[in-house]
Amino acid sequence: MTLRPLARYIPVLDWGRSYNGNALSNDLIAAVIVTIMLVPQSLAYALLAGLPPEAGIYASIVPIILYAIFGTSRALAVGPVAVVSLMTAAAIGNVAEAGTMGYAAALTLAFLSGAMLLAMGVLRLGFIANFLSHPVIAGFITASGILIASSQIGHILGVKTSGHTLPEILWSLWEGLGSTNWITVIIGVSATAFLFWVRKGLKPLLRKNGVGPRLADVLTKAGPVAAVIVTTLAVWAFDLADKGIKIVGDVPQSLPPLTIPDFSPSLVMQLVVPALLISVIGFVESISVAQTFAAKKRQRIDPDQELIGLGAANLGAAFTGGYPVTGGFARSVVNFDAGAETPAAGAFTAIGLAIAAVALTPLVFFLPKATLAATIIVAVLSLVDFSILKRSWVYSKDDFIAVAATILLTLTLGVETGVSAGVLLSLVLHIYKTTRPHIAEVGLVEGSEHFRNILRHPVKTDPALLSVRVDQSLYFANARFLEDLIYKRVMGHSEIKDVVLMFPAVNEVDLSALESLEAINTRLKDVGIRLHLSEVKGPVMDRLKRSHLLEELTGEVFLSQYDAWRKLAPVAKEKAAE
Amino acid sequence: MTLRPLARYIPVLDWGRSYNGNALSNDLIAAVIVTIMLVPQSLAYALLAGLPPEAGIYASIVPIILYAIFGTSRALAVGPVAVVSLMTAAAIGNVAEAGTMGYAAALTLAFLSGAMLLAMGVLRLGFIANFLSHPVIAGFITASGILIASSQIGHILGVKTSGHTLPEILWSLWEGLGSTNWITVIIGVSATAFLFWVRKGLKPLLRKNGVGPRLADVLTKAGPVAAVIVTTLAVWAFDLADKGIKIVGDVPQSLPPLTIPDFSPSLVMQLVVPALLISVIGFVESISVAQTFAAKKRQRIDPDQELIGLGAANLGAAFTGGYPVTGGFARSVVNFDAGAETPAAGAFTAIGLAIAAVALTPLVFFLPKATLAATIIVAVLSLVDFSILKRSWVYSKDDFIAVAATILLTLTLGVETGVSAGVLLSLVLHIYKTTRPHIAEVGLVEGSEHFRNILRHPVKTDPALLSVRVDQSLYFANARFLEDLIYKRVMGHSEIKDVVLMFPAVNEVDLSALESLEAINTRLKDVGIRLHLSEVKGPVMDRLKRSHLLEELTGEVFLSQYDAWRKLAPVAKEKAAE
Repeated sequence: MTLRPLARYIPVLDWGRSYNGNALSNDLIAAVIVTIMLVPQSLAYALLAGLPPEAGIYASIVPIILYAIFGTSRALAVGPVAVVSLMTAAAIGNVAEAGTMGYAAALTLAFLSGAMLLAMGVLRLGFIANFLSHPVIAGFITASGILIASSQIGHILGVKTSGHTLPEILWSLWEGLGSTNWITVIIGVSATAFLFWVRKGLKPLLRKNGVGPRLADVLTKAGPVAAVIVTTLAVWAFDLADKGIKIVGDVPQSLPPLTIPDFSPSLVMQLVVPALLISVIGFVESISVAQTFAAKKRQRIDPDQELIGLGAANLGAAFTGGYPVTGGFARSVVNFDAGAETPAAGAFTAIGLAIAAVALTPLVFFLPKATLAATIIVAVLSLVDFSILKRSWVYSKDDFIAVAATILLTLTLGVETGVSAGVLLSLVLHIYKTTRPHIAEVGLVEGSEHFRNILRHPVKTDPALLSVRVDQSLYFANARFLEDLIYKRVMGHSEIKDVVLMFPAVNEVDLSALESLEAINTRLKDVGIRLHLSEVKGPVMDRLKRSHLLEELTGEVFLSQYDAWRKLAPVAKEKAAE
Repeated sequence: MTLRPLARYIPVLDWGRSYNGNALSNDLIAAVIVTIMLVPQSLAYALLAGLPPEAGIYASIVPIILYAIFGTSRALAVGPVAVVSLMTAAAIGNVAEAGTMGYAAALTLAFLSGAMLLAMGVLRLGFIANFLSHPVIAGFITASGILIASSQIGHILGVKTSGHTLPEILWSLWEGLGSTNWITVIIGVSATAFLFWVRKGLKPLLRKNGVGPRLADVLTKAGPVAAVIVTTLAVWAFDLADKGIKIVGDVPQSLPPLTIPDFSPSLVMQLVVPALLISVIGFVESISVAQTFAAKKRQRIDPDQELIGLGAANLGAAFTGGYPVTGGFARSVVNFDAGAETPAAGAFTAIGLAIAAVALTPLVFFLPKATLAATIIVAVLSLVDFSILKRSWVYSKDDFIAVAATILLTLTLGVETGVSAGVLLSLVLHIYKTTRPHIAEVGLVEGSEHFRNILRHPVKTDPALLSVRVDQSLYFANARFLEDLIYKRVMGHSEIKDVVLMFPAVNEVDLSALESLEAINTRLKDVGIRLHLSEVKGPVMDRLKRSHLLEELTGEVFLSQYDAWRKLAPVAKEKAAE
């Protein structure tokens, strides 16, 4: 029991105490399956990030363990993922040519990203991630998928490409087409075709031939490993490396090394913004994966604690030769499907990868980069999903604009500009919408106590009484809109004696809006019209009571619009007198 | 009648047709009074802006006429005002030392500002001004008043000061104290004291001695003119200019000259942001003045047409030796009180000032700058009003933060940073608030059909039915907040079978929020809980019908929460069965 307060920040203290043999065996099986899948994937993502292949393996070892200690999701698998690898490539591409210098920058990037995530977690700033709207994320992921796939086409053709935007990549591809290496093309294209077939066709085939569902699943997941083995053997057997095929080459045979990130101020300054974007994007990706799995088991994810878990994982990456990591969907699905019960499965995966790093690295010497590119292309094309364009078009034009702009800007100006512009644009659109709130003139539905929009329903009105329903909180950006609207409606209609503002959907009235209400009150008073309020919510009323508005109000505050009608509408009064 | 469409853009065509002798004589009287007040004021504001004195006069002539043609307010007097003069000084202070170069920059600034206002008017972007919240404006005006007054203390002491922030000004005052000119101090302090007395004590005194209210008013307004005459004569009579007193000196005796602003790209680039801030601040000041007067006469102000009127006025200033202008409160009050009926009064004022520019400028040769500084100090101290700090503190802490930050930053970092930071901060605070909407768990008020917050009222609830009222529109920045809240409330409470979300105050559900609702629906389904909606507004429902949510929803959409209760609450069902 004494562990409780501590367990809040170090969840391992919670689930670790009830760990047993059953969970252990489930976790071990899951770890073996995930390890097999992760070896080629880690190499491939390092390639995508423009880093030496071992960086991908190292980034999968210590971060997993740290997340297992500090994270709250029991199924999330942390490590290099496609989008973050792309963003890493873009960030370090700006500060250095890929290679050793880039690697140093990647460590700094992981450190900054880890420190930011940790700080956001401690300060409980997880809500920052909410500013990435679903349309912006969807557009960004789709555009990133296209960028990633096109950046790998060069490896498939044996052509050197460069650039971090679609026009740049396509242009460098076009320029390099003359130097296409045809043996690379054969290996690359057949690996890609094979992996696509494994993804789409293998499982139904296996099932039809009587293979059990679980085994069919494992075999399907092993597709990339098979492609790696076959193409590596082919390169080795036929001495293809001498024929211009790019291979992985020497990978140090070692456990993750201790690395110290470069903290030179100029480098840090250049990487601050990319690190922030990587942190937020990585966090959003990770938390949505974690929540999906947690909900399936009625477990809870604490977003702020997740920030701490991911922060620790990234700091771990920075000091052990890795690069920015986050919780990935693909690896987490495998982990979950393979039956992982606790974060210990992640720790066992780390052990498996450590063994691979020490023992298996010489075996990938002849692995063609084209094969790795093929695994990336097949993996990321599932990210590309243009259906969001259609969905948002049907549902809301504002959301459509945000998606379309994010896709377009990410493709043409790169990941950082694309996602920043998307966030900014959706904020601007949202604020713009709230500056022109829906405000309806209402009348009484005959035979009821309900008031409805006079434009939508046949209702009874009174020329001397103007009833206006405000369908939005009032704050500085829309307060004057209400003022203008009231003046416009009232001026030149001298028959109006009373104006009632209905506030059933007004959740806030800030000081600017209060002053607008006071101005409306004063100006209507100048022309002999009384101002009333009705259906004001409790919290809003509490606040209005702390101002002078209620004292100065020329009219009354009615509990319901119907009360206002009975008291103020001459039509209603005449009726009562009859 | 054929003029109607045109008259919308050139209001003079509207009021000009019904102009008559009565309006003419009223307008002429008003023009004489305003002209007398404007001569010293125009010189003083030019001094404040760091420009030659004639710039102030020129800025009052053509702009007034152009506003009379294009503007919609019948009482607004356009010309140099204190805050805009201060902002002009700050803007041109950054690009040049005051003097001829500064004057050229001021013309460019007026041109840019005019072009921006015109563009905003044509594009109907007047709503941009709404982003200046009342607290930010109030804080900004107060801080500007302090900056203006302190920048004039140097003239009163005969000390040269510099800088555009309070610490800079105070520091340069402190450094210059040794060179204080005592004759200047005597003139400056007595002029200031005299003007304060005119403002506060003269009118009651005159009234007590039987002077009529109208005449007392005119005499009070003539205070600055009296101070100008007396001190000018004193300097001339006692040869004080030889004793180190700074005087206005030579002012060209001419009508406004034709000037062409400097359009060199580097200058334009430097002035774009200041011009935008001047445009918006000037527009906000002007429109609030115009609306105050229009409301008194049940006239309407068209904000977009006002932008066009002010834009034309500023373009006029740019080409006739002026500097940025806007509708000022003080001069408009005088105009209105003096009985101006139409914008023609402004045109007559322009003629009066043109006569002054040609005939009277030699008379101000010996006018001490200390006197002008005194008129500025007395005028702007009425802008300083710290009561907004107390009001906002009582009413809303967020508004208080915005005011306090705006005041502090304007004083310490200058007008441009201050007002920009204020706008940004109030937007951030507003958005932050909406990310954590008020969401209440509700229960039935016994004996009624109403549902209220379980924390505020004694209500009936059912363990199997969770009813949640959402008091805010749902959009990307708060959608996940709702998700988290629902999961937190549901997880670990296996007795819950139904969740109802009440939407009476939800005015919008964007695509992100829709996806959150879909996620809530799916995840609750995974654990055997149905999701229902109730009291969904028409426009929101219209939009939800264009999505898949309603098909996938595990529960129903109820018209009222009471319907949901009767159908879903086991307590209610048992009762019905009894």
